[in-house]
Amino acid sequence: MDQRSKADLLRRRHGGPEVLVLPNAWDAISARIVEAEGFSVVATTSAGIAAVLGYPDGQKIPRSEMMFLIGKIAQAVEVPVTADIEAGYDDAVQTAHEVIASGAVGMNLEDMADDELVPLPTQFQKIQAVRAAAGAVGVPLVINARTDIFLAQHGDSATRFDRAVERLNAFYEAGADCLFAPGVTDPKTIGNLVGALMGPLNVLATAGSPSIAEMKSLGVRRVSLGSGPSRVSLAALQHLVRALRDEGTFAADAIPYPQVQKLLTRN
Amino acid sequence: MDQRSKADLLRRRHGGPEVLVLPNAWDAISARIVEAEGFSVVATTSAGIAAVLGYPDGQKIPRSEMMFLIGKIAQAVEVPVTADIEAGYDDAVQTAHEVIASGAVGMNLEDMADDELVPLPTQFQKIQAVRAAAGAVGVPLVINARTDIFLAQHGDSATRFDRAVERLNAFYEAGADCLFAPGVTDPKTIGNLVGALMGPLNVLATAGSPSIAEMKSLGVRRVSLGSGPSRVSLAALQHLVRALRDEGTFAADAIPYPQVQKLLTRN
Repeated sequence: MDQRSKADLLRRRHGGPEVLVLPNAWDAISARIVEAEGFSVVATTSAGIAAVLGYPDGQKIPRSEMMFLIGKIAQAVEVPVTADIEAGYDDAVQTAHEVIASGAVGMNLEDMADDELVPLPTQFQKIQAVRAAAGAVGVPLVINARTDIFLAQHGDSATRFDRAVERLNAFYEAGADCLFAPGVTDPKTIGNLVGALMGPLNVLATAGSPSIAEMKSLGVRRVSLGSGPSRVSLAALQHLVRALRDEGTFAADAIPYPQVQKLLTRN
Repeated sequence: MDQRSKADLLRRRHGGPEVLVLPNAWDAISARIVEAEGFSVVATTSAGIAAVLGYPDGQKIPRSEMMFLIGKIAQAVEVPVTADIEAGYDDAVQTAHEVIASGAVGMNLEDMADDELVPLPTQFQKIQAVRAAAGAVGVPLVINARTDIFLAQHGDSATRFDRAVERLNAFYEAGADCLFAPGVTDPKTIGNLVGALMGPLNVLATAGSPSIAEMKSLGVRRVSLGSGPSRVSLAALQHLVRALRDEGTFAADAIPYPQVQKLLTRN
């Protein structure tokens, strides 16, 4: 499947009624596991990739290193890949070009950088520019525009919902395909967001979130897990090393070596 | 601590009676977890690193990409790092120089490449050359020389023990610091190896291996886990994505996000 077709496929997956469920990957083998278990799209986690290379979250990783891992993920799987590239690393258009060059067909774009909310007109223009740049090279990138108002608990809580809706709907008008509101977990607010938004809603699933079935009934179109799967995976390592240190034992549930090798030699 | 001191420290950890226990890391954050849980040395796993970048095991990964991840691991931790660089990627001396440049202070060196056992004189000279090259730049790399005779079930099983001992003792004479015999799990053979070898023995711990306490009583000086920790970590991801797919749920034990960020911002 060519890159344009993959982008079209990813865009169609936001049309409902099924929820696009994304257990985010952070390297090639995690992406292959997600694909092999039947998921039709692989999303990346910027926090997870940054951790692989030793950087904290929040645009501390150089763009070239983020793109290196995104490229490895896109090469490792056949399904469409959507890349988490935080706030776009200074030049969102250049980043969009590199996302396309990596083989991915979608990207997130956050509206907060250096703990500051990007002014709405600036973010609007950024999304427009990415939309135009992707169109110009013939790969209709699926843009998942995110507001950090809920996640960062930004400003007056009484106005948070209205400000988030204002932003997300503006992002949709600027050309975004999906609207991402991480930090929202209660069903009532999720349902109200679905009702107020002009485009498909992406929710970040955390321990306190509704199940996928409930999300679907609320009208959510995309559910991603962010760095959760990466941190679940690392918790298993933490348990292993603690047992090794404290008990001198190392028995733990592992994917057998031949199965990992098979996942890596599919091509 | 400078690199020479780290190399000396790593070498001393092979002197017993305590076992040097190595839950191998495959990226920066896994290395940080190993260090933070109190392990005094971080070893890398070549199979694990290759999987991060989408390559199967067995020298399929380009040396530059392997060294990129080893460098990230060495930069992420303060403790000595020993690098698994398989059979040395064509030019073991060049690889040794790159291991030193990465910040690591030890390296494994296997005697099998492309499913063929390297002739003993060739491997002897390779170890000598690495020893000399490291000496020339003033970083006394800790060389862990490995024979794959047991792991690959090479040749006549009746002569396997003697052939492995012949090789490993030759590697010690060539300048290796530690002798690695993966594929041996029964206590009797392990004890016989300890008795027959001129240098410290490294055993690969797998599900059927004796505990660390038993290894210590047998005289083993180094126990590594190879790709096991990586595959345990990936199994946790596999469980998560299967529950997500089949039940629409995503509750699983995770290292909290702030804790991961703290591990990455120690410096």
